[in-house]
Amino acid sequence: MTINTHFQQLPDNYLFKEISNRVEAFQQSHPNARVLRLGVGDVTRPLPLPVVDAMHRAVEELAHPETFRGYCPEEGYPWLRQTIIDNDYRPRGVQLELEEVFISEGAGSDLGNLSELFSSANRVAILDPSYPAYVDSSVMAGREIEFLPCHADNNFVPSLPKEKADIIYLCFPNNPTGTVLTHDQLKAWVEYARTNKSLIIFDAAYESFIEDSDIPHSIYEIEGAKEVAVEVRSYSKSSGFTAVRCGWTVVPKATGLQAMWMRRQCTKYNGTAYVAQRAAEATYTPLGKDGIQNNLAHYKGTAQLLSQGLRDLGFEVYGGKNAPYIWCRVPKGYTSWSFFDCLLNNCQIVCTPGAGFGPSGESYVRFSAFSNRKDCEEALKRLQALA
Amino acid sequence: MTINTHFQQLPDNYLFKEISNRVEAFQQSHPNARVLRLGVGDVTRPLPLPVVDAMHRAVEELAHPETFRGYCPEEGYPWLRQTIIDNDYRPRGVQLELEEVFISEGAGSDLGNLSELFSSANRVAILDPSYPAYVDSSVMAGREIEFLPCHADNNFVPSLPKEKADIIYLCFPNNPTGTVLTHDQLKAWVEYARTNKSLIIFDAAYESFIEDSDIPHSIYEIEGAKEVAVEVRSYSKSSGFTAVRCGWTVVPKATGLQAMWMRRQCTKYNGTAYVAQRAAEATYTPLGKDGIQNNLAHYKGTAQLLSQGLRDLGFEVYGGKNAPYIWCRVPKGYTSWSFFDCLLNNCQIVCTPGAGFGPSGESYVRFSAFSNRKDCEEALKRLQALA
Repeated sequence: MTINTHFQQLPDNYLFKEISNRVEAFQQSHPNARVLRLGVGDVTRPLPLPVVDAMHRAVEELAHPETFRGYCPEEGYPWLRQTIIDNDYRPRGVQLELEEVFISEGAGSDLGNLSELFSSANRVAILDPSYPAYVDSSVMAGREIEFLPCHADNNFVPSLPKEKADIIYLCFPNNPTGTVLTHDQLKAWVEYARTNKSLIIFDAAYESFIEDSDIPHSIYEIEGAKEVAVEVRSYSKSSGFTAVRCGWTVVPKATGLQAMWMRRQCTKYNGTAYVAQRAAEATYTPLGKDGIQNNLAHYKGTAQLLSQGLRDLGFEVYGGKNAPYIWCRVPKGYTSWSFFDCLLNNCQIVCTPGAGFGPSGESYVRFSAFSNRKDCEEALKRLQALA
Repeated sequence: MTINTHFQQLPDNYLFKEISNRVEAFQQSHPNARVLRLGVGDVTRPLPLPVVDAMHRAVEELAHPETFRGYCPEEGYPWLRQTIIDNDYRPRGVQLELEEVFISEGAGSDLGNLSELFSSANRVAILDPSYPAYVDSSVMAGREIEFLPCHADNNFVPSLPKEKADIIYLCFPNNPTGTVLTHDQLKAWVEYARTNKSLIIFDAAYESFIEDSDIPHSIYEIEGAKEVAVEVRSYSKSSGFTAVRCGWTVVPKATGLQAMWMRRQCTKYNGTAYVAQRAAEATYTPLGKDGIQNNLAHYKGTAQLLSQGLRDLGFEVYGGKNAPYIWCRVPKGYTSWSFFDCLLNNCQIVCTPGAGFGPSGESYVRFSAFSNRKDCEEALKRLQALA
């Protein structure tokens, strides 16, 4: 047996594993230190009660012969897919067919697995910095990558690719920079894709943080996007589902990929857990929506606290509005990893080093609004004491 | 963007989708017919109470700030991986390291996704008939396949490949034929793999149906297998988890693939749902084991009922012992699909046409012991009336 040698092009450690390894080592040598985790984009607020109730009811259904269910449809239950269309798309003027919505156990899997639908020969364009999985899954498939640098000088808004890109990964609101695109800015990408017959893989995992009205929540709000874009969505950040596992992907028939993705899912996926699908459904009930909005308001408040607090300490800060991530320039003389180590060793604060998201992240670290509020307040105090 | 053209080599419909399409069409034109589903390998018995309780407790943990959890480790929680080693391997004399066990949301995904670790150039050997996902995921990857025919003349035990095979998919107890391999028979495959530097992907999803003592439950019961085999396991059939979604894959370090699989999972998988991992853990408690065994005893009884009932009706029947599947030769003059249609139209019985598992399945249909017991009894009556 010969291995897929493209794996050898990957860095040894996945970013978040490397961070947790360093934090673990620190914690072992400093067992009494109270480490404040402000880095990883994991939620911290409990699930809202209507979601919890729905999960209990689903578990109970599986406990009795009259209501027991086995395999869920590979593409997800129609009641959840229709609820998504009715709540997340129709009110924004986007018409989707039921067959174009696929429930998944999370955006991470779909973003990786979509890669299987394309030949290795495709040229990929990826923002720099970006979520590492776009790059890593493209490397695993042996594809050539053009990085589109995002830095303070271009307001973290990437230019169009220099050479023709066949596949383009876009994530807005952006992880890690917190940048958002207006309707007109996103329209330029859809037009590029239509002209060049490219496919956009649009990661809208942070859509629920959008507050300004001229920022599209879905790429399908742009006319003509259905022919050139697949959209990946998640309940992880909107509804606190990182341990529950549920998301969805829209593959419009007009992309020519809908039947392929259905085939891929029927072959390599056995459906999303029933309890998770009922949990997702409950987020759309009136009480469910209240609970979700309540959690989101809390995280948005944390984003505001962190942005302002870091600014008051003299840091150069981006993002944190319409987005849960704060992108913070490191002080002169530091790299992003040396500043990570400095914060860990001197303040017991964990951030995410920008270099882990690509070369253009080198002078930045990411803070996350999903962090515990009290930890953020304590972190700002520790930073002030250091300054 | 250019697509992965290997997808065009796939048949249009995935077997189980095609069956459900035909059944749905029949049900629509015969709305009052009571269709008996004896085909698909989906469980029908409710989850045992200790598993249900564990799921409720896990849901409740996610409902409160003190106990809330976010992302689970990509490779699964150590407490579940250790429990698996202690219960499923150590008692059989198999020593595994914690890092060699990876929790997943089901065997189906892992069996498909493992394919990414290997180059396209590998030659694959697959039993004929077999679970369609081995073939389909190999076709999607553009690999050459040698089929190893299994028929009544060789007792459904495949011969070794004629040309050197780099990757070999083995499933024992077998789906769909219900065949099992003795220790010595499986040893021949491990020796073949060691001699030829092949990798065996061993699908042991039906291991809990084994009753005879000379049949290995894990391929690692064979000396030297750790260097040449990856083993995929599932709670779906042993514990009724087809809607819960949990399984595991063992990737021994000696295969040289453990770090690659870890990298793959960290990139394209965000961990198995917390509720599912706690449900899996509960299957190993004394009361959980009782509940599981109780359900298994029921299914084994159904296998016995179906095998004997079909035999009494004059059918040529294989499997159904140490395995949940009954492999039944169709009457002369029928193909497997025409017999499927005959049973559906004349008796409203759904079976699985053998041809869907490969050309050597052409003269057979599969019945499943997971079917509702009353439906099986009713089905045997209807068949008797027809005879």
